[in-house]
Amino acid sequence: MSDVFLLVLDLGGIAVFAMTGALVGVRKELDGFGVAVLAIITGLGGGVLRDVLIGAVPPMALNDWRYLVVPTVTGIGVFYFHPMVGRVEKQIAVLDAIGLGLFCVTGAVKAEDFGLGIVPAALLGMVTAVGGGLMRDVLAGRVPVIFKDELYATPALAGALIAATLHYYEVQQGWYSVAVGVCIVWRLLAVKRGWQAPLPPGIDRG
Amino acid sequence: MSDVFLLVLDLGGIAVFAMTGALVGVRKELDGFGVAVLAIITGLGGGVLRDVLIGAVPPMALNDWRYLVVPTVTGIGVFYFHPMVGRVEKQIAVLDAIGLGLFCVTGAVKAEDFGLGIVPAALLGMVTAVGGGLMRDVLAGRVPVIFKDELYATPALAGALIAATLHYYEVQQGWYSVAVGVCIVWRLLAVKRGWQAPLPPGIDRG
Amino acid sequence: MSDVFLLVLDLGGIAVFAMTGALVGVRKELDGFGVAVLAIITGLGGGVLRDVLIGAVPPMALNDWRYLVVPTVTGIGVFYFHPMVGRVEKQIAVLDAIGLGLFCVTGAVKAEDFGLGIVPAALLGMVTAVGGGLMRDVLAGRVPVIFKDELYATPALAGALIAATLHYYEVQQGWYSVAVGVCIVWRLLAVKRGWQAPLPPGIDRG
Repeated sequence: MSDVFLLVLDLGGIAVFAMTGALVGVRKELDGFGVAVLAIITGLGGGVLRDVLIGAVPPMALNDWRYLVVPTVTGIGVFYFHPMVGRVEKQIAVLDAIGLGLFCVTGAVKAEDFGLGIVPAALLGMVTAVGGGLMRDVLAGRVPVIFKDELYATPALAGALIAATLHYYEVQQGWYSVAVGVCIVWRLLAVKRGWQAPLPPGIDRG
Repeated sequence: MSDVFLLVLDLGGIAVFAMTGALVGVRKELDGFGVAVLAIITGLGGGVLRDVLIGAVPPMALNDWRYLVVPTVTGIGVFYFHPMVGRVEKQIAVLDAIGLGLFCVTGAVKAEDFGLGIVPAALLGMVTAVGGGLMRDVLAGRVPVIFKDELYATPALAGALIAATLHYYEVQQGWYSVAVGVCIVWRLLAVKRGWQAPLPPGIDRG
Repeated sequence: MSDVFLLVLDLGGIAVFAMTGALVGVRKELDGFGVAVLAIITGLGGGVLRDVLIGAVPPMALNDWRYLVVPTVTGIGVFYFHPMVGRVEKQIAVLDAIGLGLFCVTGAVKAEDFGLGIVPAALLGMVTAVGGGLMRDVLAGRVPVIFKDELYATPALAGALIAATLHYYEVQQGWYSVAVGVCIVWRLLAVKRGWQAPLPPGIDRG
């Protein structure tokens, strides 16, 4: 039961991140295969990083065919329908926030299942949530979003901390949605209102 | 016996990939040390990634001195003889295809030896084959070849799948050469004939 | 006792590398959060890489809160006082060399504690010492220093080899300072005197 619940959250996050990876690939004018590869790496990168860091090897992404099919199909879909997907750019920001919310929770919960305490598990949840996007940006030659926007990793850490606490006290799984929700709402408010971190003293924002 | 056979294939793949890494380094005008470092990372990167993903730590590359000597000597050799090596650019494409063929097989077989099923082992074989080149391109600031050419990872996956199947049914090791050969021939035909993946709708190839 | 000694060396190295990461971030005009993130990745990257490669998962950096507090506070401090820190650029080169010396020793010693022989442990010490800086440079879009300066990784390997040998023969920990010192002095002499590796034949230094 627990496994099915987490599997659905995990695959949902993978699909959403794969979509952002595919869109970056389309904008970089990669061909169909390149777009699919970038979608796969963006979708699976965070989870593979988490699994390696907690010693859950081989990572689920290589062991369970659904983990490969979801980002591949998503990537190919974006490639063929990208004018339509591109038009809905704002909805993509929403989907990216949803991915962040889903991954911070599944990352934290899986880390606790492998014996980590609340705070380390929360950190691992954050790493899971931001890892795929970091790989996407490095591979595409962009400045990683995590460096430019303080309210990207912070909501992920908050959601992961809530999820790790709930899981530690064996609260019913339905409550995990609170953790997902806090991360998503916080992230979306930051995007909508343009909240920004301060620049170093003496440097103006371009 | 099996170990010697795989060791030779593995070191052969390392030497070939180290050569491609060293050539990229020479073109980026790195000095002798930089060229050697890039050769080492390109040659060993795929295998280290594989070992970490299957939990075979510490990776062979850090435990067996031959794994370090081969790419180091190769890198230094290319550095001193690069005008000669550069002249044989086309032969390098052939060597790169050979590296792909060797690594997809050793990667898949080692993954099965660590308990993975046929399909996960084949995926790991592909990751082993493309990993070093991906690191080389990221470190040198190039667009990774895996994004630009659909027929780079695909032949590696095919070769890895054949090798994983043969190894699963304990077919005699000599037959692994079929897997190596399929990957190499497919890759070389793609290079020679300029086979390409489709670009996204609405974008012309420059 | 041993653990406290190594912990202090490790945290010292983390603080120093975090400082170099933060300075790179300030120069790239990242905001406060980006600077802190780059400081954290630079400070912890080498140790996480080491822990993953020897199977010491989850890495200390995720399990012990001090490992996260040190680079975070360092990064924020540099962000607010960067004009002062920037003015002391030469002292930073000294600090970077100190970080190299500390990390090559703690990396080699920890690797031996996990069962590796002297030479593999020395290699791992070198990887630990150069790993964080490599991640910093890749993420900031710079040519990694390890490619441009032969006397960056070499002193780290020398220090790690000395430390691995001392630890193997259970020499008293105070002697580790010899290994730290050899690496630091060698590195600083190379910087001061501008020692350089040869470029490929036929290419002039710009």
